Amino acid sequence: MTITSSNPAPTVAVILSGCGFLDGSEIHEATSCLIHLARHNINYRCLAPDITQADVVNHAQQKPASESRNVLAESARIARGQIAPLAELHAEKFDGIVFPGGFGAAKNLCTFAKDGPNCTVNPDVARIIKEFHAAGKPLAMCCIAPVLAAKVLGTASGGKGCNITLGNDANTAAAITKMGATHTNTTVTQAHTDPTNKLTTTAAYMYHANPYEVFQGVGAMIDRFAEMLRK
Amino acid sequence: MTITSSNPAPTVAVILSGCGFLDGSEIHEATSCLIHLARHNINYRCLAPDITQADVVNHAQQKPASESRNVLAESARIARGQIAPLAELHAEKFDGIVFPGGFGAAKNLCTFAKDGPNCTVNPDVARIIKEFHAAGKPLAMCCIAPVLAAKVLGTASGGKGCNITLGNDANTAAAITKMGATHTNTTVTQAHTDPTNKLTTTAAYMYHANPYEVFQGVGAMIDRFAEMLRK
Repeated sequence: MTITSSNPAPTVAVILSGCGFLDGSEIHEATSCLIHLARHNINYRCLAPDITQADVVNHAQQKPASESRNVLAESARIARGQIAPLAELHAEKFDGIVFPGGFGAAKNLCTFAKDGPNCTVNPDVARIIKEFHAAGKPLAMCCIAPVLAAKVLGTASGGKGCNITLGNDANTAAAITKMGATHTNTTVTQAHTDPTNKLTTTAAYMYHANPYEVFQGVGAMIDRFAEMLRK
Repeated sequence: MTITSSNPAPTVAVILSGCGFLDGSEIHEATSCLIHLARHNINYRCLAPDITQADVVNHAQQKPASESRNVLAESARIARGQIAPLAELHAEKFDGIVFPGGFGAAKNLCTFAKDGPNCTVNPDVARIIKEFHAAGKPLAMCCIAPVLAAKVLGTASGGKGCNITLGNDANTAAAITKMGATHTNTTVTQAHTDPTNKLTTTAAYMYHANPYEVFQGVGAMIDRFAEMLRK
């Protein structure tokens, strides 16, 4: 889809990974992405892998729960029921792609939460990151989700590398370096852009922050993303 | 807790009813409440009843699911784990109270979704609405949640009535009238205030709206709420 004067409103894909920061998409980040996309008059479509969650966490007790949930069904809670399976996503139908964070991005979209730099990435997630990147379409990722770009586009995976932010944590920055990507420190309300890769990232709840700070950081990221979409 | 120059930041209670618009709190509304409270430097504490949900809905299929979930545990997903049982809430410890919407407000906090004007209200919910109202502390309610005030404070329940908005739907407005409250039409980005009862309401997803419109309406409601808190 090309953005022309007869089609001024871009349409982007938002990739969810469940519903709740300990086992799915971080809710405030995902919601902030949708609010800021709507603020920019950017159409969006939510998608998620139709797979079983890596785990289910009781968020009141912050302990594992002995049940099974589906990533697509839980993500639909954030998407108000309007969601499609990730397998159906192809870059030619969309103008850009957004990944909110939460442990779901590191548990259900890849295995970074348990495997660190040696993680594997869900095949559909790896495929679509490569498709959008190869097509020169912008990517936005927040919180821990930028590890997906670091892994898929990193030199350790045969890519040319990319530059991302995860805030200012030295350990996660070191993990990024091992995947063959580079890290830039930012504050919670800032976004960071790698113009070569049309990739914009923000730390969000990588910081111990309040929802308004996260909302501002995600807003800065979507502002950059919107600029790249309309260029 | 009194708001004085030595204690300038009010603390309010946010009452959740699950996580997902079809069986719990509407996620965008609840998140928007938390963002706007943080924007106003208002401290908040999330609480929810420690009860089994009235039902569980698969949000991808928008059909009932044959499982059981706990309102407190699911609400904790929105609250990032920081949540307390509603039974522990007493008005003297807080300066005001906020109810996001979603079907959870009409299924888990009261039975309006199935019983309409003849609904019953969860005893803790009825108690706290009366406590905050009697103490002259402000209440904010969005989407379908204002039916709680209409029922608890309505003349049909022996109260003096209140004035709320649920948008512009004639059927729900008629139900409000049967409970002994009055209705005022609003647009999605407006909030409506009943100064006598220190009650402010906004329609949110009572309209077929986008997340930014809902965010703006909730923002208008929290602006009014903040003004009443600081008076």
